[in-house]
Amino acid sequence: MNGFRSTDVVVIGAGISGLTAARRLAQAGRSVVVLEAGDRVGGRTMNLDVADGVVTEGGGQWVGPGQDRVLALLGELGLRTFETYVDGKSIYHRRGRSKRYDGTIPPLSPLALADFAQLQLRLERMARTVPLDAPWTARRARTWDATTFGHWLDANAMTAEAREMFAIGFSVTNSEDPHSTSLLVQLARIRGSGGIDHIVNVTGGAQESRVVGGTVRIAERLAEELGEAVLLDSPVFEIAQDADGVTVRSARRDVRADRVIVAMSPADAARIRVAPGLPAGRAMVQRRWSSGVESKLFAVYERPFWREEGLSGQAVTDLPVARYVVDNSPPDGGVGILLTFLGTAHAGFGERWPDGILDDPAARRSAFLADLTVLFGERAANPVAYLEKDWTHEAWISGCVGSRPPGSLTQYTDADRRPVGRIHWAGTETATVNQGYLDGAVRAAERAVDEVLNRGAGS
Amino acid sequence: MNGFRSTDVVVIGAGISGLTAARRLAQAGRSVVVLEAGDRVGGRTMNLDVADGVVTEGGGQWVGPGQDRVLALLGELGLRTFETYVDGKSIYHRRGRSKRYDGTIPPLSPLALADFAQLQLRLERMARTVPLDAPWTARRARTWDATTFGHWLDANAMTAEAREMFAIGFSVTNSEDPHSTSLLVQLARIRGSGGIDHIVNVTGGAQESRVVGGTVRIAERLAEELGEAVLLDSPVFEIAQDADGVTVRSARRDVRADRVIVAMSPADAARIRVAPGLPAGRAMVQRRWSSGVESKLFAVYERPFWREEGLSGQAVTDLPVARYVVDNSPPDGGVGILLTFLGTAHAGFGERWPDGILDDPAARRSAFLADLTVLFGERAANPVAYLEKDWTHEAWISGCVGSRPPGSLTQYTDADRRPVGRIHWAGTETATVNQGYLDGAVRAAERAVDEVLNRGAGS
Repeated sequence: MNGFRSTDVVVIGAGISGLTAARRLAQAGRSVVVLEAGDRVGGRTMNLDVADGVVTEGGGQWVGPGQDRVLALLGELGLRTFETYVDGKSIYHRRGRSKRYDGTIPPLSPLALADFAQLQLRLERMARTVPLDAPWTARRARTWDATTFGHWLDANAMTAEAREMFAIGFSVTNSEDPHSTSLLVQLARIRGSGGIDHIVNVTGGAQESRVVGGTVRIAERLAEELGEAVLLDSPVFEIAQDADGVTVRSARRDVRADRVIVAMSPADAARIRVAPGLPAGRAMVQRRWSSGVESKLFAVYERPFWREEGLSGQAVTDLPVARYVVDNSPPDGGVGILLTFLGTAHAGFGERWPDGILDDPAARRSAFLADLTVLFGERAANPVAYLEKDWTHEAWISGCVGSRPPGSLTQYTDADRRPVGRIHWAGTETATVNQGYLDGAVRAAERAVDEVLNRGAGS
Repeated sequence: MNGFRSTDVVVIGAGISGLTAARRLAQAGRSVVVLEAGDRVGGRTMNLDVADGVVTEGGGQWVGPGQDRVLALLGELGLRTFETYVDGKSIYHRRGRSKRYDGTIPPLSPLALADFAQLQLRLERMARTVPLDAPWTARRARTWDATTFGHWLDANAMTAEAREMFAIGFSVTNSEDPHSTSLLVQLARIRGSGGIDHIVNVTGGAQESRVVGGTVRIAERLAEELGEAVLLDSPVFEIAQDADGVTVRSARRDVRADRVIVAMSPADAARIRVAPGLPAGRAMVQRRWSSGVESKLFAVYERPFWREEGLSGQAVTDLPVARYVVDNSPPDGGVGILLTFLGTAHAGFGERWPDGILDDPAARRSAFLADLTVLFGERAANPVAYLEKDWTHEAWISGCVGSRPPGSLTQYTDADRRPVGRIHWAGTETATVNQGYLDGAVRAAERAVDEVLNRGAGS
């Protein structure tokens, strides 16, 4: 059962980063084998079937301006994008009252708006001093890496309302509790993904567009091109380096190669034994990666009825479950879909999800629909379908984005991406620009491929 | 190669917790199989060979008063303890100056001593309000779980000197950065392990005694008793429950049982697939466990020469590598051994280990010996041997103790130990008393065994 194969480069992981790396290598004339642990390609992108050929994205789903490398890849693959639906008025709901608003800025109280602005100004001023390729060289790097983003907010926000806005905005993009994220990491992300407006906005921001057919189409197209080079159900358990090359041992096959690109989150890469042992910094980045985990909940309606009422479907709330809601209908609006996220992001602020909803799908559905009914009226109470994608129970994927904990950047610097002999590291977590986004996955892949090509065979 | 076996209870993990559980079950007349992933028993206890039959402990090594369950177990197994050597004067070294002192309290500046005292007083007052079995019910639980111990120290320590003392004390016992540890978790640990003096002290505290022959003798004795019930090299990859029992699949053997006790750290338990899926809280505790990781460095001398000079060998310092030094010689003092720890604990305070020492054993040795020479003179510069145990590269053990991150206790409460159908949880991380200590490992085992015995077969 354990076949043997020889190739120029092994890529581990058939997410967008791994498959992009494999394609670039193949384009450069290198032979390549992609080993994927799971039974599908796409990694943290995947589709859920709604009905009659309609799909919705169970994982990473957005692209936006400035995400040039993933946009270029979409172009190369002939995939089209469409704008996230935000026409009409959005809803800001807090303490039992709903307000409707136009544009991107929810109608916080004047004091909270001023507070949000001063927090944003300060964070962006700090972020500008953080060199993207070497955040640990920022003048105040040690101070900022010794605290978390959540604590900085706790200490510097004057209003709970502004702080909640940050928590919601960053939970959607980072799937992670700001209290587990180093402030220095967060500042580097603010700098590397175009600023806070860009991070939190739909129009003109990182949530601006979706991919027709779902983002998993990227991986599927790449895999089609790569054909038999992609091997599924092949979890890798060992990478062994010697003077002449590297042997990658997987459940289905051993592959001998000149180099290997590991295109996995650092947390997942920790499952692979490496011989000889990894440098301490790399080992620590892997072992102490704080994985964000979340679920996506979808309510499906015959049509996007809120649009008829002049609503965008977008809502920012303090309701028990639906903290952020967005219209996730297919491009033709043939059915209506409302999406929310349920994750770890608010835990560090002392909040908790209502009892029972984490383990009881029926309770979760009820609580979500109750919130939607508050926001969008009785028509929201009876969807034609309810779907969810829970990333807590994936066999081979331990989380979404996440972060290095306090102290890791200043102590271990670029250990997340520094090559270890013949081993190179991809995955969006290793990107310096748009880290955590699909674009970061592509950029990390291209950087890893450059490393491989520039070193040449055996050098 | 994949045999099949049937038993009353499967225990996963042959550390002290797992083997204690197996022995208790066998004593109660239950048949038991222990599946251990690695090629040895002991888990996070192990011996290093020094020379001529002399050993030193590579992992957990101390027991102390109040740790009644592990002390009782030592008695049952006929193992003896001896006192950690602290006779004579200890050294407090800070900013280039060494001071010698008697007793347990280093000669901090008067202001720092007062500061340490107020911090200790406040922490212990807070800890008294934390119910051991349900820390999340403390009146201020949400506030304390929304911050980290490190941040509380940053905010409340008036002197860097007192803060450093806490960092050193807690790094030795927790192997973890206080900035990755929820304050509520730490308060529960202070309460559950007898207070701060008890945590940091040798005499009268948790570092008071060692086990003759090393703590790994506990696991070895237990394994001898259990005989063929203990199977090594048997990593478990799946636990599948059904109405009638549970099937545990390992690399070497599948075992069918009535119940299973998982005696692993939550981080390591995450490697095992569970069908049907785990409750969300348990899954999140596993995935978001923050593992502390550290190395132990040992300098071995022909004899403990410092004793002749009236020194205990103990030192508390701000030197680059040897922050805390302790005499780790064998009971007869036949050779002299000085021990220090190198880990993640200081990272969140913006400190970092000197360049190169993490990856270069020779540099690490040199830096350690340079520090020892500052403390103990030229005789320390030339040991007869240098040993180290690096816990960063263990194949099956992802860390030492560690902690739940902020928000986890209040959101997921007792998910770390609440049984999941036929699955029960042991390991020191699941103990409410002496969590993280050997004693916690024994207590957790006994609690899990009680659960199994009280539910009876198939109930």
